[in-house]
Amino acid sequence: MADSSKLSVEVWSDIACPWCWVGKRKLEAAVAQFGEDVDVVWRSFELDPAAPKSLPDDVDLTSRLADKYGKSREGAEQMVDRMTAVGQDNGIEFRFEQARPGNTFDAHRLLHWASNEGTQNALKERLFEAYMQQGKLVSDHEVLVELAADVGLDPERAQLVLSSNDYASDVRSDEAAAGTMGIHGVPFFVFGGRFALSGAQPVQLLVQALEKAKEDATAIEIVGEETETCGPEGCAV
Amino acid sequence: MADSSKLSVEVWSDIACPWCWVGKRKLEAAVAQFGEDVDVVWRSFELDPAAPKSLPDDVDLTSRLADKYGKSREGAEQMVDRMTAVGQDNGIEFRFEQARPGNTFDAHRLLHWASNEGTQNALKERLFEAYMQQGKLVSDHEVLVELAADVGLDPERAQLVLSSNDYASDVRSDEAAAGTMGIHGVPFFVFGGRFALSGAQPVQLLVQALEKAKEDATAIEIVGEETETCGPEGCAV
Repeated sequence: MADSSKLSVEVWSDIACPWCWVGKRKLEAAVAQFGEDVDVVWRSFELDPAAPKSLPDDVDLTSRLADKYGKSREGAEQMVDRMTAVGQDNGIEFRFEQARPGNTFDAHRLLHWASNEGTQNALKERLFEAYMQQGKLVSDHEVLVELAADVGLDPERAQLVLSSNDYASDVRSDEAAAGTMGIHGVPFFVFGGRFALSGAQPVQLLVQALEKAKEDATAIEIVGEETETCGPEGCAV
Repeated sequence: MADSSKLSVEVWSDIACPWCWVGKRKLEAAVAQFGEDVDVVWRSFELDPAAPKSLPDDVDLTSRLADKYGKSREGAEQMVDRMTAVGQDNGIEFRFEQARPGNTFDAHRLLHWASNEGTQNALKERLFEAYMQQGKLVSDHEVLVELAADVGLDPERAQLVLSSNDYASDVRSDEAAAGTMGIHGVPFFVFGGRFALSGAQPVQLLVQALEKAKEDATAIEIVGEETETCGPEGCAV
């Protein structure tokens, strides 16, 4: 819009996505440096839409990762260690060994509801923490209701959203938009609807994208000659 | 926004502005040709913010125009005739001889309220007609309440808005934005927040601006290399 509304930052991400949580920290640092309020919108992206509600408890993380990437247990452990170290550098305490993988569709529906309620950002943070630090099963409705309540949302209304199909089309619509843009990895940031960054990029690059988008948002191109207007001195006839 | 919301068309204009009504017709024709729904937002611009609530009834239009432009009565009549002919070409029956000039600030406040109610476009049309065809004094609160009711708005709530100072800051904010953009004549169209046209331009130019804005809205520039993302196959570590 041409008026001075806040710059929008849309972030496609999943809950079960360590780089997305790191990306959130980097975005927060970038916005602080940018020095202006922005309107952060968390958009849905399921890394594994076909994921079952939960996985058997007896399969540990290292085995899962080793299986998934065709690595040795040692190779998988190294991956986890590296990611944990990156987390520490960004003020995040990952506890992957506790993580309970599951489908995130309902968590995304809840995030869309939270957006209407003005607490999407807080719920997003709470979900990252629940999944990647506290070993909570974020596909479970009781868990989701508790997490919603933790950020001040009404638990009864959260339960109603979860037991309905509400906001499913919003999740699908975000994912369709991701498809249109060719997004195949998250986090994926779009600044002012125009400039995109893929991945948990360095803070400085995020700041640059914010500044670029701001400059762009206020640039209006006048096309054509001025003609047939009314002004304070009257109408051109 | 990066998602597929409708293209916005913001139009700065005043009620007391023949070219603005003509511009509205041209925009309607352009949108029909463009073939997609757009989100038209009528933004406030007072041609004469210092105008009194009404002018004495005994000064006729031709004298006013002659005075204003330093023309003879004959020259002023020719201007009116030309503008009337332009109106006819665009399906508008101007009856300037009946027009009752007055301050339009409250009409603009009412338009901002109507925007919340989803009937801004209908009220804008009704105001043009009332002022430039039906000789109604659009600074008069009783008149404004009737016009609001004509387009389905609640007369009691319209009265409440008028007797308060509600939406005054919205009018000022539109006018401040106009100032920032250097708008000195209306109608002034901004398409998708990026491309502007000044004046009641030919339909074909408006269509081109709509198409240009549409193309632009879907263009997202990826800045920087992709790095540190999670995808369906796992996270890059």
